[in-house]
Amino acid sequence: MFSSKIEEIQPFLVMDILRKANDLERDGKKIVHLELGEPDFPTPKVIVESAKKALKDGNTHYTNSLGILELRKSISDYYNETYNLNISSNRVIVTNGTSPAMLILFKLLLEIDDEVIISDPHYACYPSFITCTGAKPVLVPFKNFSSEVTNYITDKTKIILINSPSNPTGTRLRKEEIEKLSALHPVIVSDEIYHGISTGIRDHSALEFSDNSVVINGFSKFFAMTGWRLGYMIVPECFVRKLEILQQNFFISANPFVQIAGITALKEAIPEAKLMNQIYTKRRKLALEGLESINLETRPHPDGAFYALFNVSNFEKDSMKLASEILTSAGVALAPGKDFGPRGEGHLRLSYCNSEENIEKGINLIGKFLKEKYL
Amino acid sequence: MFSSKIEEIQPFLVMDILRKANDLERDGKKIVHLELGEPDFPTPKVIVESAKKALKDGNTHYTNSLGILELRKSISDYYNETYNLNISSNRVIVTNGTSPAMLILFKLLLEIDDEVIISDPHYACYPSFITCTGAKPVLVPFKNFSSEVTNYITDKTKIILINSPSNPTGTRLRKEEIEKLSALHPVIVSDEIYHGISTGIRDHSALEFSDNSVVINGFSKFFAMTGWRLGYMIVPECFVRKLEILQQNFFISANPFVQIAGITALKEAIPEAKLMNQIYTKRRKLALEGLESINLETRPHPDGAFYALFNVSNFEKDSMKLASEILTSAGVALAPGKDFGPRGEGHLRLSYCNSEENIEKGINLIGKFLKEKYL
Repeated sequence: MFSSKIEEIQPFLVMDILRKANDLERDGKKIVHLELGEPDFPTPKVIVESAKKALKDGNTHYTNSLGILELRKSISDYYNETYNLNISSNRVIVTNGTSPAMLILFKLLLEIDDEVIISDPHYACYPSFITCTGAKPVLVPFKNFSSEVTNYITDKTKIILINSPSNPTGTRLRKEEIEKLSALHPVIVSDEIYHGISTGIRDHSALEFSDNSVVINGFSKFFAMTGWRLGYMIVPECFVRKLEILQQNFFISANPFVQIAGITALKEAIPEAKLMNQIYTKRRKLALEGLESINLETRPHPDGAFYALFNVSNFEKDSMKLASEILTSAGVALAPGKDFGPRGEGHLRLSYCNSEENIEKGINLIGKFLKEKYL
Repeated sequence: MFSSKIEEIQPFLVMDILRKANDLERDGKKIVHLELGEPDFPTPKVIVESAKKALKDGNTHYTNSLGILELRKSISDYYNETYNLNISSNRVIVTNGTSPAMLILFKLLLEIDDEVIISDPHYACYPSFITCTGAKPVLVPFKNFSSEVTNYITDKTKIILINSPSNPTGTRLRKEEIEKLSALHPVIVSDEIYHGISTGIRDHSALEFSDNSVVINGFSKFFAMTGWRLGYMIVPECFVRKLEILQQNFFISANPFVQIAGITALKEAIPEAKLMNQIYTKRRKLALEGLESINLETRPHPDGAFYALFNVSNFEKDSMKLASEILTSAGVALAPGKDFGPRGEGHLRLSYCNSEENIEKGINLIGKFLKEKYL
C-alpha cells in the first residue's frame, strides 16, 4: 500500500524519548529535560506584540510567494551588516521555516543519483530531504570534515551541505575551513540556523567566501521562534525565479503576520537575542564542566548552538538503549546519538535549553547513574 | 546546474496577471480584481483574538507533530457533526496548510510511475505534487469525470483525487458520484477545501462512503484564513504513524498559536463562516447572471467555491493572450484557464471574491471589450 521508499525515512528516536518522558511525568515522576532542540525562552515580547498588531491590522491573506518586500530587505540588511556583505534583497526568499526552504532548494538542484556531502553526525533530517529527490547523502566523518571532504567528491557531487555551529555537536567550522570548502566545485549550502548562538569570534557566513553559495537560515533558534515557522534562503540571483515557481506550487507563501513579526525581530529584537546568547554561553560552560566532572568526553569542545555530544560507548554502544535507561532510572531525558547518523551511535546529545539549576541537577543524576551501574 | 525535471513544474500564469495588474495600478490605472483564489474577507475577529491571546500566553514553541490534541479533537468533532460520521481524532493530522499535507501524503503513497487520476481542468498545483514523487497525473475530462473514470484506471492507478466544490469550475460532484468513485479500488483522496462554500444541498465528504478515503482540508477558504497556513488530513488509522514520521522529518509541526486559533474557528466562528457563504451565494448569482447577459457560457452552472469558468474559445483560443488583453484594455484581471490543465485552455476563470459592485462593473467592462473587439 505504501511507497517502497518510505522505510528510508527514519523516525526520530528523540521523540520516543520525549513521549516516554511525558508518560513518566504523568505517572508523577520528575524528569529533567535535556533532550529538546529548541530554546526554552519565550519569544521576545516585542516580536509577539508585532504579530498581534499585524493580526489586528488584518494581515491575514497570502503574500507574494518570495515574501514581503520589507522582510526580504531586512534580511539582506542583516546579512550585509553582520557579515560585511553587499547582497541584494532580490536574492532572499522567505519560507515557512527552513524545512520548506530545503525541500524546494533540493528539488531545484538535485536529480536521481546526484550526491550531497554531509558530515556524520549531522542534523537528523538532512538525509530525508536529500533522498526524497532521489539523490544520495554521502557521509564524511565529522572530525576531519574539511580536510577529508575532497576524497568524497565525485562527478555526481552537486552539493556540500555544511552546518556551523552544528547540531548535534555544537562545534564550529573555522573561517579557513569554510573558505576552503567554498573554493571546491560543488555548491555550498550553508545551514546557518545556529548563527549568533556562539562564544568568542563571530560566526562566518558561507556568503563571505562565495557569491554562489546558498544560505539557509531562519528565526527559530536565535530569536527563540521555533513554533512560528519562519525561515529564508539567500540564493544566487539566477535561482530566484525557479524557486519562486516552486514556492508558488508547493507552499504559496509564508504567513503574513509572522513575516511582519520577522521584520520586527531583525529591527528591534537583536539585543534581546544577544542576551539569550549570553545565557547559552554560561550554560555551555556549566554543562561542559559538569560533563567533564563525571568523566564524559565532548572533544572537540562545543562553542556554539546549545548542544554537547558526548561519548558513552565505553558504557553502552547502543545510544537508544542507554538514553532509555538514563530516562527511566535517573529521570534525565537526552537525545540518542544514533538519530544523527552512524557516527553519532555510542554518543548522547545533551541540549542545555534548560535552567542552570536543571542542567547541574541533570548531569549529577547522569553521573550517579553511570557510577552505580558501570563503575 | 538545475534538475532536468524542474521544467515539469509550471509557473502560475495568474501570478503574471496579478503582477501586471499591480504594475498598471502603480501607473494610476484602476483594475477590477477577479483573478484571485482567496476570500476578500478578513479573518473573523474571534479567530484573530484567539491567536493574539495564544501569543500572549506564550504558545510559541513546537507542538506534537500530529498537532495539538484539542485541535485534532475539534476537527474530528466537526467532521462527525457535519457529515454524520464517527471518526476518531487519532486519524487527524494537522499541517501548515493543505500543501504540506499533500506532499507527505503523496510521499507515503506514491512511487515512480504510479498513476493519480485527476480531472481536467483541475487545481493548478495538483500535477506538481504528483510528479515530484515520480508518479504521473492522468487527466480525465471534467465533464463526465465519474462516468468515464473507469476507462482510465490501470494497475498503476493508486489514487483518484477529487475536489468538490471544484477549483476552477465551481461545480460539485453529486452524492451518487462520490459514492460510485468510493467503490472503486484506488484510494480516494478528497480535497474538501471548498466545503461549506456552496448553495443548496450540503457538501458530501468522501468519508461518508468509505473509511479508506483520505480527506484533505484546511481553514483557508471557509474561515477566510488563507495567510494563516493551517490545514489537516483525515486518514485511515494505519497511515498515522508513517505520516507522523514524515511530518517530523519534513515540517516538524504546525504553528502553535495558529493551531489554537483553529480550535476557536471550529468552536466559535462557524456562524460567521456561514454568513460569508451567504454572501458568496449572492455574488455567485450576480456573476452568473452577468456572464449570461454578455453571452458567456458557464455550463454546468457552478454552485460552489467562488469561481466561474467560462468559455471564450470563440473569441480567442489562447486564454493567457485574452486575459492579458482584457487586463490591459478593459482593466479587469481574470485567471487564464490554461493554468488549470489542457481542457482549461480557451476558458477564463472569474473569482467572485470581490464586492457585488466590482463584480458587476468587471463583467460590464469584459462585455464592452468583447463587443468592441470581436462582435
